[in-house]
Amino acid sequence: VNTSRRARALEAARRVGADGVLGADPATVTWLTGFEVDIESGPSPFALPPLALVTADGPPTLVVSADDAASAPEGCEAVTYPGFTTGPLDPVGGAARVLSAAVGGRKLATEPGALSAALARDLRFVDATAELAAARAVKDADEIVALRAAIELCDVGQIEARARAEAGMTEIELWTLVRAAVERAAGGRTPLLADLVAGARTAQTGGPPGERILSAGDLVLCDLVPRRHGYWGDSCATFSIGEARPSARAKHRRAREALERGIDAVRPGITGGHLDGIVRADLDYGHHSGHGLGTSWHEAPRIVPGGATRLAEGMVVALEPAVYGADEGVRLEQVILVTSGGGTILSRHPLEL
Amino acid sequence: VNTSRRARALEAARRVGADGVLGADPATVTWLTGFEVDIESGPSPFALPPLALVTADGPPTLVVSADDAASAPEGCEAVTYPGFTTGPLDPVGGAARVLSAAVGGRKLATEPGALSAALARDLRFVDATAELAAARAVKDADEIVALRAAIELCDVGQIEARARAEAGMTEIELWTLVRAAVERAAGGRTPLLADLVAGARTAQTGGPPGERILSAGDLVLCDLVPRRHGYWGDSCATFSIGEARPSARAKHRRAREALERGIDAVRPGITGGHLDGIVRADLDYGHHSGHGLGTSWHEAPRIVPGGATRLAEGMVVALEPAVYGADEGVRLEQVILVTSGGGTILSRHPLEL
Repeated sequence: VNTSRRARALEAARRVGADGVLGADPATVTWLTGFEVDIESGPSPFALPPLALVTADGPPTLVVSADDAASAPEGCEAVTYPGFTTGPLDPVGGAARVLSAAVGGRKLATEPGALSAALARDLRFVDATAELAAARAVKDADEIVALRAAIELCDVGQIEARARAEAGMTEIELWTLVRAAVERAAGGRTPLLADLVAGARTAQTGGPPGERILSAGDLVLCDLVPRRHGYWGDSCATFSIGEARPSARAKHRRAREALERGIDAVRPGITGGHLDGIVRADLDYGHHSGHGLGTSWHEAPRIVPGGATRLAEGMVVALEPAVYGADEGVRLEQVILVTSGGGTILSRHPLEL
Repeated sequence: VNTSRRARALEAARRVGADGVLGADPATVTWLTGFEVDIESGPSPFALPPLALVTADGPPTLVVSADDAASAPEGCEAVTYPGFTTGPLDPVGGAARVLSAAVGGRKLATEPGALSAALARDLRFVDATAELAAARAVKDADEIVALRAAIELCDVGQIEARARAEAGMTEIELWTLVRAAVERAAGGRTPLLADLVAGARTAQTGGPPGERILSAGDLVLCDLVPRRHGYWGDSCATFSIGEARPSARAKHRRAREALERGIDAVRPGITGGHLDGIVRADLDYGHHSGHGLGTSWHEAPRIVPGGATRLAEGMVVALEPAVYGADEGVRLEQVILVTSGGGTILSRHPLEL
């Protein structure tokens, strides 16, 4: 299980002079173990965030409260401390004890930004945030399957947004229909980040849905980012309520052309910076042209000016060029798998205005 | 702004020999500043979790990325580091620099379990997790207003669950209707934890909604925990699809009596343990009888066997006795404000079977 990821993680550890990896970022924990980290409820009074320990000996090991033991995926072990209880709570003490026993004095490559200060005290560690992020960028075959499943939820949500949007409803009303469609398709509760804005707010990149009422001629900018089985999809479309204004059609055409330029340019060896330049050309959106995604919703390779990471077979990038004006904006986004011959589009949602 | 909370936080710092407070738990950050911490998207590649610095000089200070500066509530300051950018990312370095400058060498009372190890390195700090949790337990008047607003969302969701549940739909279909009603009422996206289970799963305390189909005679256990303006509501009801079985009616009667006993017993001075014993009596549910809530969904005072915290005026507790059997369970929950004369029920959702 995860042999390739485990090997890449250990290689990252070797490069920083460590004997193993302690994944602290939830994205790294999922990447190493397959464990779906709960991110929707904030910190728990009963547990610290899960950790993943990978050494040369034995399978990946989750450090979690006993409440999570049953959710440990096949192929990884779990060392646990007491979680939910009617007795006194001490998740920090519990986690520190089992972590210390599992680590056994090894020097670990970890992510100090995400690691609890209470656990770092008694740990020998070295910062391998950058190395682990780089290792996560190339996806294994089973990760591509997971990403495709997450992108299917994007497709469902985008189709629902387009089918249900109509003059007279609010952004938040439309949002509840979209989220419901995604969760019905997933068969369960689904973390879902999103921009969902209409009218003049589309000029401002995005934002959460609010109580603005949709009107005929409004653009709706819908960027949906669902997580399924621990992997994130991503997608954006911009469409019109009724007949689009000529200015909107012009923006849409330019954004569509930029996206097509990017898709055509995706291939192993091209740098993020080079690809950014091809997509961006004469457009002046204030954000990246794209980014990797996987167990996190924004990761390497970043498709940004000067981005030095070279695309490689097995990387997955979302490209999202945009054209923003004074009172309307259009953004389009698809996810592309880097293949030996170029790229394969994984997204299937409609892009029409 | 937050004068009383600020004074209590500084008192907690003095008790542990510190010169100020560095709130690291998102619940403490919200409590000190009013800032609504984003908890739904997991760690950000562009920022560390927000921190709140409170010293004897000046207003509470948020340590956040520049992206959050505009959301800093009135009455608090923000020191910021670069957030979202198309350039290189270094949230850890940025946060460490501005934190160090703002702290100015002070020794701080903080929550090491929630603090990033990358920031702790250069900080003089002492663990005040317990003292800050205790300080958060008594609510100020504006916090009661916020809690009432969150509980209103519970009421909306509970009424919707009862109105929409019918044989033939799945748990997840019912869930999407409930969540939509809550978000429409809130006018925006709303963090919402929940148990929503039907049939035999009600015997197992709770769980997330899944694809089980509701049948006539099923119990539905619905525990809704929404966050509004940074404060959490809580609520539970259990109701029947169609005619309830006599065994379910008997369980419901016992749970209702336990809840009534608890509400009658709430008053300043009673310990959590004493109140737990009154509510629990001869019932054998495997969880707490209740808990405090505020900027977190489970906090002091815990209403558990042996709980030593004495209720005080201004505390807010959710009581949630339950009766679980082999194949069905009933849990009922209301939120009560501790007043000088006893308690005031803040919940208004229906409790009938």
